[in-house]
Amino acid sequence: MQMAAETKARQHDAGEGPPFERAEYDRRLAAARVAMDAAGIDVLLVTDPANMNYLTGYDAWSFYVHQLLVVEIDGRAPVWIGRASDTSGVALTTYLPAEHAVGYPERCIESIDDHAMKFVGAFLKDRKRGSAAVGVEMEAYYYTARGHAMLTGALPDARFIDATGLVNRVRLVKSAPEIALIREAGQIVELAMAAAVENIAPDTRQNDAVAAISHAQITGTAEFGGDYPAIVPMLPTGPFSAAPHITWSDRRFAPGATIVEIAGCRRRYHCPLARTVYLGTPTQRERDTEKAVVEGVAEALGAVKPGVLAQDVEAAWRKSVGRWGIVKESRLGYSIGINYPPDWGEHSTSLRPGDKTELQANMTFHLMPGLWFDDWGIEISQPFRVTETGAEVLTSYPRELIVKD
Amino acid sequence: MQMAAETKARQHDAGEGPPFERAEYDRRLAAARVAMDAAGIDVLLVTDPANMNYLTGYDAWSFYVHQLLVVEIDGRAPVWIGRASDTSGVALTTYLPAEHAVGYPERCIESIDDHAMKFVGAFLKDRKRGSAAVGVEMEAYYYTARGHAMLTGALPDARFIDATGLVNRVRLVKSAPEIALIREAGQIVELAMAAAVENIAPDTRQNDAVAAISHAQITGTAEFGGDYPAIVPMLPTGPFSAAPHITWSDRRFAPGATIVEIAGCRRRYHCPLARTVYLGTPTQRERDTEKAVVEGVAEALGAVKPGVLAQDVEAAWRKSVGRWGIVKESRLGYSIGINYPPDWGEHSTSLRPGDKTELQANMTFHLMPGLWFDDWGIEISQPFRVTETGAEVLTSYPRELIVKD
Repeated sequence: MQMAAETKARQHDAGEGPPFERAEYDRRLAAARVAMDAAGIDVLLVTDPANMNYLTGYDAWSFYVHQLLVVEIDGRAPVWIGRASDTSGVALTTYLPAEHAVGYPERCIESIDDHAMKFVGAFLKDRKRGSAAVGVEMEAYYYTARGHAMLTGALPDARFIDATGLVNRVRLVKSAPEIALIREAGQIVELAMAAAVENIAPDTRQNDAVAAISHAQITGTAEFGGDYPAIVPMLPTGPFSAAPHITWSDRRFAPGATIVEIAGCRRRYHCPLARTVYLGTPTQRERDTEKAVVEGVAEALGAVKPGVLAQDVEAAWRKSVGRWGIVKESRLGYSIGINYPPDWGEHSTSLRPGDKTELQANMTFHLMPGLWFDDWGIEISQPFRVTETGAEVLTSYPRELIVKD
Repeated sequence: MQMAAETKARQHDAGEGPPFERAEYDRRLAAARVAMDAAGIDVLLVTDPANMNYLTGYDAWSFYVHQLLVVEIDGRAPVWIGRASDTSGVALTTYLPAEHAVGYPERCIESIDDHAMKFVGAFLKDRKRGSAAVGVEMEAYYYTARGHAMLTGALPDARFIDATGLVNRVRLVKSAPEIALIREAGQIVELAMAAAVENIAPDTRQNDAVAAISHAQITGTAEFGGDYPAIVPMLPTGPFSAAPHITWSDRRFAPGATIVEIAGCRRRYHCPLARTVYLGTPTQRERDTEKAVVEGVAEALGAVKPGVLAQDVEAAWRKSVGRWGIVKESRLGYSIGINYPPDWGEHSTSLRPGDKTELQANMTFHLMPGLWFDDWGIEISQPFRVTETGAEVLTSYPRELIVKD
């Protein structure tokens, strides 16, 4: 305890800590508790690292071992539980009191007999939560099937409730300081896209272009630096542009389309952007597809305002590109904000048929109309913020197929 | 089907495909089936993206949605199941026949009613595997608690067996072409470490140093380019060096220790390396700690040869640093090879007490003796290969505290 308290003091000396004022974290926690109450949850175990960051500021690449926040419905501060050697990171990056960082011993790492979730179960029993209604994020990436089995085994009298998306939905409407970080991320992604366009050329190796993109993403601007995006640059090129999630190789660029899907990131807040760079002369079909996509994006943006539903934005796009005979099966976009690998999407709302989320001011989305055909693909995307009356674009990078003849 | 076959033909035109000969994949699959047979598994569902790559070559950043390989105990080629829009990536990166890439529809994305694992359950029933012994990787990062619940619900007559680590252990002994890629990754990480040492300086922002590191990691050499490591550069600096998994900020470097833990990566094969850069003049205690670590690493390496146990290597280190009064609670190292975020460790064998894995020639490890005290930390690591008679270091970067006065 004493060590952790000293670390906390040093943190303040170093001018570090969480990115927002304490009042913002208090508001977030209160909103999460309203959702917990509505779901009948006494204790919420938050395992999604983005949700852990959102509620406390916690920020470290420690999600490859079991870790979570214990959020109780009463007014106490959350308790972080993770690997003992990571507790010092709690003092350095969160507002939590030192005694709210609880470390499990090293023998729990990659162990069944001493599984970390058994430790969590024992902790909750000690706290008289053995027969509570426990919310768990059943679909969070790092909440494994075995972790759940160990936890339910350790708490036979508890009632488990699937709380997937509970905190994610609280994250949907952004505060002014959050918007400020996303706008900075937007500035960064424009610089990174410019580096991509400059470096994608017939005699260049793909990896050399990505090195330049990555350099720009992390350098940021003279005023603020970049954080790591939750996804590495995706760069399907030539025949590979038909496969949306292919990364790079060290072969040289060939004529045709290269898709660049990247993000800028500021203190874990993302602003993604996708463009397509074409080496050579596009065919008429490719030019027509560009025109359809650019028009479709404009019409989708035109449909954005508070009160419309997420699916309405997609419907505007669908109607627009339908005039060109284009059908896109996959979703048109998704909410953006804080995230960690492997995904920068917020997993709360998608722009797609059936999503009846009502848009509100200060929601932020990536409108990502990727089209993949059998031998090429095109992506011209637009991140945006919902305003009081419409949509504000978060990047001003021209929406066009970028042709390098 | 026809489209996928055409994509396959284009792949061969592009000179791409999996990194190894078909015979190597056949050997790997045969070894996995021996382990399946020993565990009484009829059908193994491989969800760890590193294991999917190991068995087929599949390589894309698509693990943020459900995907898996179906490996049956009989001699048929595995079946890849994933998002429909990712099937083209199977044709482009694996040896699998086109009809062995099965896509689930887009409506399964982020859905409970149409969960991807219900699709997988129906697929297995159609294949007469509804009452099979099904192996699942219960502790794989992307095999979520909900995914498991959906799958077991869809296959009420199946018997589920935890196959965590089954393929990981098959990966332990590397082939000559694998060793060649890891050695190339070793060359890359030395270049990246040199960039780190050059750029860590009092007036430099942390993110600018990381931009240089990342640029070097992806540029690689003139002969071969770098792939993305499974972990971004970890760079705990100043008071943060007490916290091992902290990444960077845009503050400037302060006097004291900065830990650099990075990897080179070649076609998903990793060679990690850690060093500590010290700005200013280390105290006597810091110099003593350096000496203890450097000696301990040498003695641990001296204990390596086929036939000794993983725990014996740790014991040699423990005895060595014990003479200096140092005790390290966390494990001393781990097996390395193919991986994807969030971890480059192979999750098969650790150098720690109780791990009785017998070392064999061509196993590869990262010997990572990180020590974290209450206000600083030090890491001087060494990746190595087990040879017929001892250990071959995979990097020649000097093992010392790097002092920049």
